[in-house]
Amino acid sequence: MSKNPATLGDAGERGVLAEVLAALAVVVTDGVLVGPGDDTALLTVRRGAVLATTDTMVLDRDWKEEWSSARDVGIKIVTQNLADLASMGGVGTGLLLTLVAPEQLPLRWACELAEGIAWAAGRVGVPVIGGDLSSAAPGMVAVSITALGELAEGVDRPVLRSTARPGEVLAVSGPLGRAGSGWVLLKDGVLQGRNECERTALDHQRRPLTDLTQGPIAARAGATSMIDVSDGLVRDGDRIARDSGVRLVLDEDAVRALARDLGPALTHDEALRQVLSGGEEHELLATFPDRACLPTGWSVLGEVSAAQERPGVWWRGVRLDPRQGGWDHFGG
Amino acid sequence: MSKNPATLGDAGERGVLAEVLAALAVVVTDGVLVGPGDDTALLTVRRGAVLATTDTMVLDRDWKEEWSSARDVGIKIVTQNLADLASMGGVGTGLLLTLVAPEQLPLRWACELAEGIAWAAGRVGVPVIGGDLSSAAPGMVAVSITALGELAEGVDRPVLRSTARPGEVLAVSGPLGRAGSGWVLLKDGVLQGRNECERTALDHQRRPLTDLTQGPIAARAGATSMIDVSDGLVRDGDRIARDSGVRLVLDEDAVRALARDLGPALTHDEALRQVLSGGEEHELLATFPDRACLPTGWSVLGEVSAAQERPGVWWRGVRLDPRQGGWDHFGG
Repeated sequence: MSKNPATLGDAGERGVLAEVLAALAVVVTDGVLVGPGDDTALLTVRRGAVLATTDTMVLDRDWKEEWSSARDVGIKIVTQNLADLASMGGVGTGLLLTLVAPEQLPLRWACELAEGIAWAAGRVGVPVIGGDLSSAAPGMVAVSITALGELAEGVDRPVLRSTARPGEVLAVSGPLGRAGSGWVLLKDGVLQGRNECERTALDHQRRPLTDLTQGPIAARAGATSMIDVSDGLVRDGDRIARDSGVRLVLDEDAVRALARDLGPALTHDEALRQVLSGGEEHELLATFPDRACLPTGWSVLGEVSAAQERPGVWWRGVRLDPRQGGWDHFGG
Repeated sequence: MSKNPATLGDAGERGVLAEVLAALAVVVTDGVLVGPGDDTALLTVRRGAVLATTDTMVLDRDWKEEWSSARDVGIKIVTQNLADLASMGGVGTGLLLTLVAPEQLPLRWACELAEGIAWAAGRVGVPVIGGDLSSAAPGMVAVSITALGELAEGVDRPVLRSTARPGEVLAVSGPLGRAGSGWVLLKDGVLQGRNECERTALDHQRRPLTDLTQGPIAARAGATSMIDVSDGLVRDGDRIARDSGVRLVLDEDAVRALARDLGPALTHDEALRQVLSGGEEHELLATFPDRACLPTGWSVLGEVSAAQERPGVWWRGVRLDPRQGGWDHFGG
């Protein structure tokens, strides 16, 4: 290993691992019986079952070098994964990190990625317990996290997508459309926000941070179905609707209010489009038996009605086509 | 989704998932409380802790299109991951699959990958419980598995790398150097074996299948340290040696016998090199208190002695430099 190695290739596998693991080793919990450095990790599971999910970000698909720092990418990939656990009513207990990158990648980039991951995971007390490092051709960088977790205290069973019932209330844990607005701004070359709304949108696009405790809180409050908004309200709502065999009927006033909350950065039509279709938001979308159940901070978005053979997300009397909005990895 | 879609892009995300999940859904166990299709999986953990490991294969780094079929890649990535569990004394309970691939990838390739994964995992009764699909630039294909597992029945604690002690015996669960020999053949343009030895080598390079029960068997027999041979005997042995603070002193006759077992496909020097340095073998390397402990099928490779300040793998009176042999993802 060269002194002060500049790239992964200079540092070699052992050198990269030493630097990256040092940056990751922020949280230590007594649940980690075997951590990084052996063939596998061994993680305590207190409640008889483990939640497991995985999510990947790819350079030039999920971020652009000019738009996002390595630290941003680290924070975003952690939020994406932990939001999936939260939407089941769970909390994280351990993360595995995979970095696929070329020899030419600056070692500093890998370390800053690790710092972002460690910071975002450390914020909620989740340790990094293992991972993998693979080389790739120049220009190819992929970052994957597998998040392990457990149902939170007081949550007896996972909150699925398939268990919404007619007569229930549809609600969301926070704003929608921020990350989508940020993406529109970045595409238009606005890398620095010119006002508070733009700064919020850009920040949420680059490094979304949502309140991950809202998943368990909603589960304890009686949420009957839940999903995190990663591909957009219409697309993710459609998943609940189809899996549950119901309609999610959006309340026009509620949706327009969310669009107004996005502020003056976008036209009202564009803001509406981002509320309905903007992905990467990572707020939680859930159904509850009635309005009285909603936890503090959640707002009503509509109601659940019988599918009448056409399950989906409905808006002003028509079913919204999920293919018309939201994010599809293969554009289909 | 187009009819009979030819590529991932033609099928769209939902279409790809439907096809791939159908191919993966071979093993069903009652331990899977929530399987693919929700935000996370939920997997029963019977023994209070979960083993977790992850491994990635990248096109043109870990396989070449001309050398390996999608089915080969699927089998190999499963073996890589399950061998890591076996080397802790564990067995698999669930797999997560990540596929990063361009829109242009033939859907058939993804389905054959899934078939290989399902076949290799099904052989040992392990279900696929979830995963992720991400798009990438043309030419970039990465396949990751995260394997979850538990210590096997009768194994009370994980077998680590750091617990070999002087006076013990070093042993291996099977042959070494097959996958490395296969790689030499492929590099030389030999895609079809011309005799049984070459066919064995090529098969083991393309789709290694080792006896994964040997990990738990060794653990129950009293193995004091264990690792699977993924980067080569010298490199992986060096990990046990350094983590344990000991020397692994190879027995020259035993190593030469393994080289002879590789048969006439290689010169004796090249065969010796592959036994010492060939990676991707996925047999298990372990230390035992004495020869009487060795399970059936294991053979003695050497002995453990005090480090005298120079831990490592020793051969004919010198320490072998792990950087001189074996596989380093970043060549350092």
